[in-house]
Amino acid sequence: MTDTTVTDSTATSARPISEVAAAAAGAARAFARTSPRDRGAALVAVADALDAAAGDLIAIAMRETGLAEARLTGELRRTSWQLRLFADTIVDGAYLDVRIDDADPEYVIGPRPDLRRMLEPVGPVLNFAASNFPFAFSVAGGDSAAALAAGCPLVVKAHSGHLELSRRTASVVASALREAGMPEGVFQLIEGQENGVELLKDERIRAAAFTGSTHVGRLLADIAASRPVPIPFYGELGSVNPVYATYADDALLSAFVASVSGSAGQLCTKPGFLFVPEGAELDAVTAAATGVGEHRLLNPGIGRAFTQRRADVLGADGVTVLSEGEVRADDEGQTYATPTVVTVDVDALLANREALLEESFGPLSVIVRYRDAAGLPALHEELFPGNLTSTVHARAEELADGSLRDLVDSLAETSGRVLFGGWPTGVSVTPAMQHGGPYPATTSDATSVGTASITRFLRGVSYQGAPQDLLPAPLRDENPWRVPQRRSAAGQSTTWGAFAR
Amino acid sequence: MTDTTVTDSTATSARPISEVAAAAAGAARAFARTSPRDRGAALVAVADALDAAAGDLIAIAMRETGLAEARLTGELRRTSWQLRLFADTIVDGAYLDVRIDDADPEYVIGPRPDLRRMLEPVGPVLNFAASNFPFAFSVAGGDSAAALAAGCPLVVKAHSGHLELSRRTASVVASALREAGMPEGVFQLIEGQENGVELLKDERIRAAAFTGSTHVGRLLADIAASRPVPIPFYGELGSVNPVYATYADDALLSAFVASVSGSAGQLCTKPGFLFVPEGAELDAVTAAATGVGEHRLLNPGIGRAFTQRRADVLGADGVTVLSEGEVRADDEGQTYATPTVVTVDVDALLANREALLEESFGPLSVIVRYRDAAGLPALHEELFPGNLTSTVHARAEELADGSLRDLVDSLAETSGRVLFGGWPTGVSVTPAMQHGGPYPATTSDATSVGTASITRFLRGVSYQGAPQDLLPAPLRDENPWRVPQRRSAAGQSTTWGAFAR
Repeated sequence: MTDTTVTDSTATSARPISEVAAAAAGAARAFARTSPRDRGAALVAVADALDAAAGDLIAIAMRETGLAEARLTGELRRTSWQLRLFADTIVDGAYLDVRIDDADPEYVIGPRPDLRRMLEPVGPVLNFAASNFPFAFSVAGGDSAAALAAGCPLVVKAHSGHLELSRRTASVVASALREAGMPEGVFQLIEGQENGVELLKDERIRAAAFTGSTHVGRLLADIAASRPVPIPFYGELGSVNPVYATYADDALLSAFVASVSGSAGQLCTKPGFLFVPEGAELDAVTAAATGVGEHRLLNPGIGRAFTQRRADVLGADGVTVLSEGEVRADDEGQTYATPTVVTVDVDALLANREALLEESFGPLSVIVRYRDAAGLPALHEELFPGNLTSTVHARAEELADGSLRDLVDSLAETSGRVLFGGWPTGVSVTPAMQHGGPYPATTSDATSVGTASITRFLRGVSYQGAPQDLLPAPLRDENPWRVPQRRSAAGQSTTWGAFAR
Repeated sequence: MTDTTVTDSTATSARPISEVAAAAAGAARAFARTSPRDRGAALVAVADALDAAAGDLIAIAMRETGLAEARLTGELRRTSWQLRLFADTIVDGAYLDVRIDDADPEYVIGPRPDLRRMLEPVGPVLNFAASNFPFAFSVAGGDSAAALAAGCPLVVKAHSGHLELSRRTASVVASALREAGMPEGVFQLIEGQENGVELLKDERIRAAAFTGSTHVGRLLADIAASRPVPIPFYGELGSVNPVYATYADDALLSAFVASVSGSAGQLCTKPGFLFVPEGAELDAVTAAATGVGEHRLLNPGIGRAFTQRRADVLGADGVTVLSEGEVRADDEGQTYATPTVVTVDVDALLANREALLEESFGPLSVIVRYRDAAGLPALHEELFPGNLTSTVHARAEELADGSLRDLVDSLAETSGRVLFGGWPTGVSVTPAMQHGGPYPATTSDATSVGTASITRFLRGVSYQGAPQDLLPAPLRDENPWRVPQRRSAAGQSTTWGAFAR
């Protein structure tokens, strides 16, 4: 685990893509058959190996991405943690959604056979890594952890923004999985957009995950949908994460600037819009933004795109600058930025949608001054139909008096996560996390963070009248893995039966 | 509920499609807010109303579809039953998958906020009704029941094969929902393929379901995927439902013919192929098929397609006829048929894939004689990559000795339901049913029968740091609906925590 230069030849390879697909497909059955305890132990082994290699990995990541050591240290801890959390999840077994219907000759619509259903792995998964989380949404990130936990062979398409880190991480992962006894072919790394597209089209790939831009994500989603055999494509694309505040004091505005500028605003949950009442005093924004140091953007492409977006926003009619910020490019084309925050009123926002509404990936946000609080729900639905997050900041009495009910309904109908107080950046990895919302936040509504994300890589299979020995372990009466089984007994046609008729 | 002639004007309408979409969207929030007990009571009211109208409904269905009274009586009972079953399901509340993470300042990857997640309705659903189940997969069928149970406003696109029945059923459903106090706009019927396509493209429709041919289903799936805002499309398309027998005695062959010819073979789970050992005596097939009376096919289009398929199969090289059967068209273009069963060996099947492998929708099946039992798993995977069902018929000692392990693995990897003995037709409606498998069986792997089908019309939403009063009822500490809540307490970073480290 200390060799930082040699990559594991089975992890990254220049093999033809069809061989990569064949290796993944060839591992599928053996991997699906592993017990949760063995597969969980392998995930923990990967977590341990990543933690052991932290020094090397973080040094490479700092160099390749420009992200700060503290941020990357926290991100790697989160990454190894989510592997451990998935180990718990699969050993617990509730995720299998096991249902057993005992045979019932008296079932009301005719004799019912013995039927047993569980979720089983879909087969090989292709995961397109993101640029902005070189650990948590990359080679060993959440999508990878979920696919491996589900029992699906995994191929990761490395992001070009941190290739050395990707190879090094892949080497750590592949070694740990092999040493834990997992079958060959369960984990592979590929590089290059063309290779990614070729593999996405390969019939042996059964599902794909992606985190990145709306443009690229939609392109890949369309490819997945137009295959001779279409497959589910779980893309996390764009979100501007609006925040609605009923007041704006200095503490709120300072915290807002911190959320906008952390990791140079290159987070999918960065608040892109903050709505405040007209007349709110905004000086604290300028003060807070001025105190934020210059931060490198992830790569030259992101730097160029941000520079252009910033110019568009600064040049839009009706915009007042609170913090102009700075962007500069160095000799190698890398861009460095300090936060840009502007303010508009609602009319100016509506009149300049093209310049203002698009996601700005980087340290930039727009404060919108509103007059009509009652109009916010309709305004939100019109402007922001699909969001990873939406946030409410309100005083205790407003939260209690029911006046926010309509706004909260609008936010819940258009967002994966609704926050009350706090800021959307800093996504926790837990059972109840939802990181995915209506398009374009995600291509499906599925979550890509938290333990519920494992269901993306599972499908239901029922066994009818099967002998015990030919059933998967979770469906057997003896229940050797001790997973939760929901049983519908014979003689009670209402199944989990609370309804009074 | 006794008026058989006047259709409810709010149910079927000639309104512009955009108004239909607007009405559905307008009902979404009020419907989503109904309590499970109220929504469940409305489903039960619909079930009661359908049962009360059974005489009228079945008479219309017999005339429009040519299906027999006994079959339609059973189908209507199943249809009202699945509404009642969904009422139970939503009152029970496990389908909401409620997860509550208590705030945890000591959470290993950083302070964890109070996070609560549940599944919420996706919004308006469009359901394309099928021709072959005028009750169970039509206006008030399984997809409709699942969408309404989930709390999604529903628009059904009527199948042209039973328009009068569709209107009459819609009238019964709309009246019952209204009398039960459900909001206007939660249920609407539209007619015509063009209207269906127009509505599928409407941004207010958030998910669609379909049961029908692979050709039409794929067309609609592609439309759903290529919208500016893509939506999930749950299509149940084609399946040939292979059966693998290690022996063939008279009882097995007679039961096979009964499964092939029931409802004139117009069932999505009809066994299209029966594999038997070479040398098996097949005379019983001819005897059983000869005893089956003529049956009308559903409509002229299906009759013409079946006539052509039958001719292709009978004309294929290597085919031996066991029961030629008959087809004839009457003056109105309706087709009447008796069962056609042919046999081929594996080599002839492989040499004539184009003629033989396609689904024959009607009373026709192919018995394949195999020599090499060990080769069946690979043969199955090559020929039948996506099936609603696959079936094994074997003697007790073979089921016990492990020799079928590989075959069962192949079937489970390619099918939604694997049967041991019995026949795939006659799908029960239960918690553990899976009616959906790898493409082309379905466009997704989701089930369209049984209580698990409700998840198709739900999406996850998390609430972070929310005051109790602004949380949906299932997420509140007081838990007024008494739904299962899975809670992750503070202080134990492993969540449902069984894994030993």
